[in-house]
Amino acid sequence: MVIRYHSEAPVNEGVVQPKIFIGRLIHSKSLNDLEIIPRAAIGVTPNGTIAFVDSKPATASQLQTRYAHEGFAHAQVTTLTKSQFLFPGLIDTHLHAPQWPNLALGMEGTLREWCENYTDPMEASYSSTSKAQRVYADVTKTTLALGSTTVAYNSSIHAEATNILADCALAAGQRAIVGKMCITVGSTHGNWEESAEVSLADSEKSVKYIRSIDPEGRLVHPCVQPRGGPYCPPELMRGLGEQCEKYRTYVQAHMCETQSDIDRTLELHPNYTCYSDMYLASGLLTSRTILAHCIHLQPRDLANLSASRAGVAHNPNSNTCLRDGDCRVRDLLDRGIKVGLGTDCSAGYMPSIHDAMRSASNVSRNLAVREGEGRYVLGFREVVWLGTMGGAEVVGMEDSIGNFEKGKRMGRVMARRW
Amino acid sequence: MVIRYHSEAPVNEGVVQPKIFIGRLIHSKSLNDLEIIPRAAIGVTPNGTIAFVDSKPATASQLQTRYAHEGFAHAQVTTLTKSQFLFPGLIDTHLHAPQWPNLALGMEGTLREWCENYTDPMEASYSSTSKAQRVYADVTKTTLALGSTTVAYNSSIHAEATNILADCALAAGQRAIVGKMCITVGSTHGNWEESAEVSLADSEKSVKYIRSIDPEGRLVHPCVQPRGGPYCPPELMRGLGEQCEKYRTYVQAHMCETQSDIDRTLELHPNYTCYSDMYLASGLLTSRTILAHCIHLQPRDLANLSASRAGVAHNPNSNTCLRDGDCRVRDLLDRGIKVGLGTDCSAGYMPSIHDAMRSASNVSRNLAVREGEGRYVLGFREVVWLGTMGGAEVVGMEDSIGNFEKGKRMGRVMARRW
Repeated sequence: MVIRYHSEAPVNEGVVQPKIFIGRLIHSKSLNDLEIIPRAAIGVTPNGTIAFVDSKPATASQLQTRYAHEGFAHAQVTTLTKSQFLFPGLIDTHLHAPQWPNLALGMEGTLREWCENYTDPMEASYSSTSKAQRVYADVTKTTLALGSTTVAYNSSIHAEATNILADCALAAGQRAIVGKMCITVGSTHGNWEESAEVSLADSEKSVKYIRSIDPEGRLVHPCVQPRGGPYCPPELMRGLGEQCEKYRTYVQAHMCETQSDIDRTLELHPNYTCYSDMYLASGLLTSRTILAHCIHLQPRDLANLSASRAGVAHNPNSNTCLRDGDCRVRDLLDRGIKVGLGTDCSAGYMPSIHDAMRSASNVSRNLAVREGEGRYVLGFREVVWLGTMGGAEVVGMEDSIGNFEKGKRMGRVMARRW
Repeated sequence: MVIRYHSEAPVNEGVVQPKIFIGRLIHSKSLNDLEIIPRAAIGVTPNGTIAFVDSKPATASQLQTRYAHEGFAHAQVTTLTKSQFLFPGLIDTHLHAPQWPNLALGMEGTLREWCENYTDPMEASYSSTSKAQRVYADVTKTTLALGSTTVAYNSSIHAEATNILADCALAAGQRAIVGKMCITVGSTHGNWEESAEVSLADSEKSVKYIRSIDPEGRLVHPCVQPRGGPYCPPELMRGLGEQCEKYRTYVQAHMCETQSDIDRTLELHPNYTCYSDMYLASGLLTSRTILAHCIHLQPRDLANLSASRAGVAHNPNSNTCLRDGDCRVRDLLDRGIKVGLGTDCSAGYMPSIHDAMRSASNVSRNLAVREGEGRYVLGFREVVWLGTMGGAEVVGMEDSIGNFEKGKRMGRVMARRW
């Protein structure tokens, strides 16, 4: 798992010639089945779809002959070196793009101190579109270079900056889920919108804009984005739920990160005694919902997640840095709840999902020690699955990305040790 | 802290021309004082000693003029780019060189399962000197490339392989502490020596050999190396203590990694009720002793460490992987006990001390959560100190390496983000 990426662009959209890649291949077939093929060949059509995965050793010309009838007679062949391997594109299910300049800062405090001292002033500054342009070009380029071919981005409260983020992802060739952050209460440093009406109208602007730049949803997908329970009063939550249904968008939000997060949510939403009940009643708990953290869950939250098919973005790095607690991934998986990994930059300081895999392993071991229950340990097969296929399920794209199967998109990275 | 090293050899021994480096400089002055100079200049004499550190911005030619009287009029000048910075060479206080081929394997079990299923058979295989040659050339080269200009290596029970490890470090230009591992009981897969006499004689062979290849101790230093309490009966411990005194060598050993480690030690050494008392009585607890782990300490262990000025190699990555528990670094530092960081490859899977800094931060946060005591958190200034100056103290070289001070050796890395 100690690897570095080649600089070659990992998303292989828009190739004009069929291609064959030959070399070691590593990918997840299921949670506990990590397939390693010492010498595999993958055929990719000009439009970037995997036409075949062949595990029978063969030379380049034998493969061109073997798949000639599928148009690979003159395919361009790339043969990996011994220390390289093919790995599916990584999927980052939670990253706050506007917080990028705060990377590796603010590790002293708790979640609330982090939000109020670092996040709020930084996010508020994206009223500047030139800043958005500069930062978001760097975020998308860097995360792609680190192997994240798909990212679920949180943005700021600004429709224009949010649209620029979508533009940057599209321009970089990165698959992305993007929406405008909605906040009307509970934040600091002016990092809020003046009313639910304004928040909803601006959210809708971004949804429409993102649909307009990628109408077929080839790469960029809109979402609605209530920051979390403490930041959106009931009428705003309901409005976002309606918007989600009207436009059939994704939902991105936070849930049960700390006890304070829960307490403040239930205070602002006094009709509920359970965080997820509030999202559910607002129409925001759907199979296209991505909920970050989900650490301090009630049994009822687990039942709601399971029934709704909402997905969980597990962010082991930021949860450790902020001392939020340890997400009980095993309990989620055992209930069939979808789980992927997030970098949660910049409360998490590492924008790499490979690093998130390692962190997920570490957090699971700490949890196992603390609870005296070895079953919480996530093995290496499982963390690879979480960072690829698990993430694909969370973003609802398990049929098109996450591993190397015939018919899927050829999002891939070529990696090597050191 | 997210950085990659340039391929340029980081140890700057044997330069033939005075050199000036200009650029951002980051180093520890003390545990909580991390100095960052946006534009510093470091002058290095032909023999690799730091002649000056200048924090007043100047051009290359101004610096050549300013330090002309010290021989820098025609110094070769290297100016760093904006994204690069100078950082002291990293110090790895604990790495098992023969376990290198097991890197990233065996993360399923406990310490004892790891030792018996992975470590013992692998270490036993170094009766093959050709294997030692191949692996140790790779270990020294790779750790240097990752910035470790100084490494305290554990070896195997074979004098010849141990000598090859010392040869490899010397050839690579890496500062190293090397000694033959001593084991006569408690291990598996034939990974033991037939008697204390044989073990001591072979240990002495390696001590003498290492002194012979680097008589002035410019780079490579011998140590005696009892694996730990469960593996060396009293007479072997005493013999190693005598050897340590006779040759004034370093000592490397393990201590208090798990409760089982402690129980087995006290069983083999029934005269003691405290692990460190046994080392102390054997003449092995000295100011040149490096003890790995030190997790489950009695108050008496703390007192012994403090009084003897022995150093602790804290290995956050391996301690997490093996679920050993969390070393209470704060308690050690508060008592003035020397602490450095180790990668503990390959129970730890990351051979980078920069990664160990991050892991030390994580482990300290888990400990803080578990104990409900924020004082256990290690801040970023502290983890940088542990990986550089703390390590320098542990290897007894705080006067010559660990930061950029006039008169010290210019062990340095040039690093950059991503």
